[in-house]
Amino acid sequence: MTLLAADPPEQAADGVRVHYAELIDFTTAVFAAHGVPRARAHAAARALCHGDLTGMESHGLANLTRLYLPLFAEGRVEPRADPRVLADRGAAVLLDAGRALGLWSAGAAMDLAADRAESYGIGMVSVRGATHFGCAGHHALRAVERGMIGLVAANCGGQRIARPPGGAVPMLGTNPLSVAAPAGPHPPFVLDMSTTAAPTGRVRRAAREGRTVPAGLLADDAGRAVTDPAEFDAGRAHLLWLGGAAGQYKGFGLGLAVEVLAALVAGAGLGPLGETGRDDDIGFVTVAIAPDTLHDRTPADAAALFGALLDCPPAEPGEPVRYPGWHEHERARERMRDGVPLGRDLYGELYEVAVRTGVAVPEQR
Amino acid sequence: MTLLAADPPEQAADGVRVHYAELIDFTTAVFAAHGVPRARAHAAARALCHGDLTGMESHGLANLTRLYLPLFAEGRVEPRADPRVLADRGAAVLLDAGRALGLWSAGAAMDLAADRAESYGIGMVSVRGATHFGCAGHHALRAVERGMIGLVAANCGGQRIARPPGGAVPMLGTNPLSVAAPAGPHPPFVLDMSTTAAPTGRVRRAAREGRTVPAGLLADDAGRAVTDPAEFDAGRAHLLWLGGAAGQYKGFGLGLAVEVLAALVAGAGLGPLGETGRDDDIGFVTVAIAPDTLHDRTPADAAALFGALLDCPPAEPGEPVRYPGWHEHERARERMRDGVPLGRDLYGELYEVAVRTGVAVPEQR
Repeated sequence: MTLLAADPPEQAADGVRVHYAELIDFTTAVFAAHGVPRARAHAAARALCHGDLTGMESHGLANLTRLYLPLFAEGRVEPRADPRVLADRGAAVLLDAGRALGLWSAGAAMDLAADRAESYGIGMVSVRGATHFGCAGHHALRAVERGMIGLVAANCGGQRIARPPGGAVPMLGTNPLSVAAPAGPHPPFVLDMSTTAAPTGRVRRAAREGRTVPAGLLADDAGRAVTDPAEFDAGRAHLLWLGGAAGQYKGFGLGLAVEVLAALVAGAGLGPLGETGRDDDIGFVTVAIAPDTLHDRTPADAAALFGALLDCPPAEPGEPVRYPGWHEHERARERMRDGVPLGRDLYGELYEVAVRTGVAVPEQR
Repeated sequence: MTLLAADPPEQAADGVRVHYAELIDFTTAVFAAHGVPRARAHAAARALCHGDLTGMESHGLANLTRLYLPLFAEGRVEPRADPRVLADRGAAVLLDAGRALGLWSAGAAMDLAADRAESYGIGMVSVRGATHFGCAGHHALRAVERGMIGLVAANCGGQRIARPPGGAVPMLGTNPLSVAAPAGPHPPFVLDMSTTAAPTGRVRRAAREGRTVPAGLLADDAGRAVTDPAEFDAGRAHLLWLGGAAGQYKGFGLGLAVEVLAALVAGAGLGPLGETGRDDDIGFVTVAIAPDTLHDRTPADAAALFGALLDCPPAEPGEPVRYPGWHEHERARERMRDGVPLGRDLYGELYEVAVRTGVAVPEQR
């Protein structure tokens, strides 16, 4: 075990780097210690550490103490729940997750969707009674590993964060959406976005780090732009939809489309109707499409499509064009090699969790 | 036949109102005169007039002389083509539209997707070799008429309009996306959007009418906001993605997701690879989801969800909250009753088409 106190001060101030494998072992052990069966705990650990590995830290280990461990503590997640099949139409399956850990169940749902896509060309697994699944893109990528296209969307159960345009009270969650596709020799395409202008994790992270956020993410009751992220949790600013002050009717529509596809189809909790306002009874959907069951052109077409985008003449010399998923893939490659950077505060949190849970502290490199 | 010259001047200046049924008969006759079989011509007419009926005039009859008749004149649409089944996996079907009129073939594809959804819970019809289909939402609504959820997305074939963020040349089209869902007693939910900040039709319409466009839609090569829409066709401004200058990486990702789902899956033309730069070999996808094959809760849930949104306390008293599809539904109801307003210039164009094609001019009310 390496304690923070033993670090040279300059390293501690910057944070530390930890082997990815160490981080997975640690996170697996924490979930297992909370009653999650080992193989599921490992899948959940991979999903959670995906955020830190790829640079989407707002959805990474920072959420262990803020989101997931409180779910266990409050009995809002059922560590050993087996999702139950409520309906099976071949290409479409409806599951009740029974509050299983979403970090695991979303991957399992995508695997099932991909199995069905092998037979039917497309497979959809709709899930109700779910809990927070972390980065949507991690689960969408499971389809890409099988040469398929993956789509993942979730609502936030009964949680209400964002207001309809022209509305005075929040009605929907940040409703994430991911679409991932193979790109031949290039990094996979992975769109992984909240349908709000930013996810709450990004706003809270900026607040913790004392940074401002760009205009277009937050507004006050009078509709004026707010750039101090601390105003969000203080209740003096609300999150806008994608498109910002001018174009957010489309972003709101996308958020509602996710509410429909992820929660209305599954029969899960719906934002405007939740009684607790909490992210319980989340609905999500995983869809896999297997283009090679339809024709054999996709691998070459995908390589050409994403290759052409990377070759697009840049507006600024030396700043090449990229697509969603490219930077995350490169970061993951670097961090697999050089270790995953963890801020000093985050490492301290994980250390506390390790001590409290009785598992090994992740070793620094 | 009513001639424009016979109109009282004040009415002519404002434009005219025409019975919806007259407009459908006229448009059906025009397509039929160009060789489209009558039933298909009627379906195509309904799709095209949907724009004028619902207030999405950028995708309505204004496109008859600008987009569709040139396709016939240049032999880029095949009026009698029967789409060919290239692969059928039960829930997923791949069609080659053979350049059939997209205004008709997209509805036919959605009908087939809905048939498959009845059996498999979800149905997807992927189409290559397609032509422009008008308002995506019109075709998505066909699923709603059967109590299903509809999703429609299309790329623009080899047409290149929008640049990747950081890119100096256009690579993708405006790549529309629609999701529609039943809302019980309320107007159906219909998101129908370009993934660019605006469709080209909206920019060109503003240019024709001498209006400016809001900042966030267009930018010049240096990235500065452009509000004169005439700069777009002059080549001095390009269209931004949804999210505008600050957030367009997500909009670009959505546009690419549509390229993948609509064209890569179908094996259609791809924006960055098209040799002509024209909107030939368009790919589109229609997906229907039948929630009542999975559980029986959706009708009540949908009514409650959209009802709660309409009941959201408004930020401005007297300005109630609405959702995408609500205004379009109300406009359609009014215009079915009071006639469809056509601008003076548009009515003149239709008059010319009627004379040239030898069909009856649509009567004014």
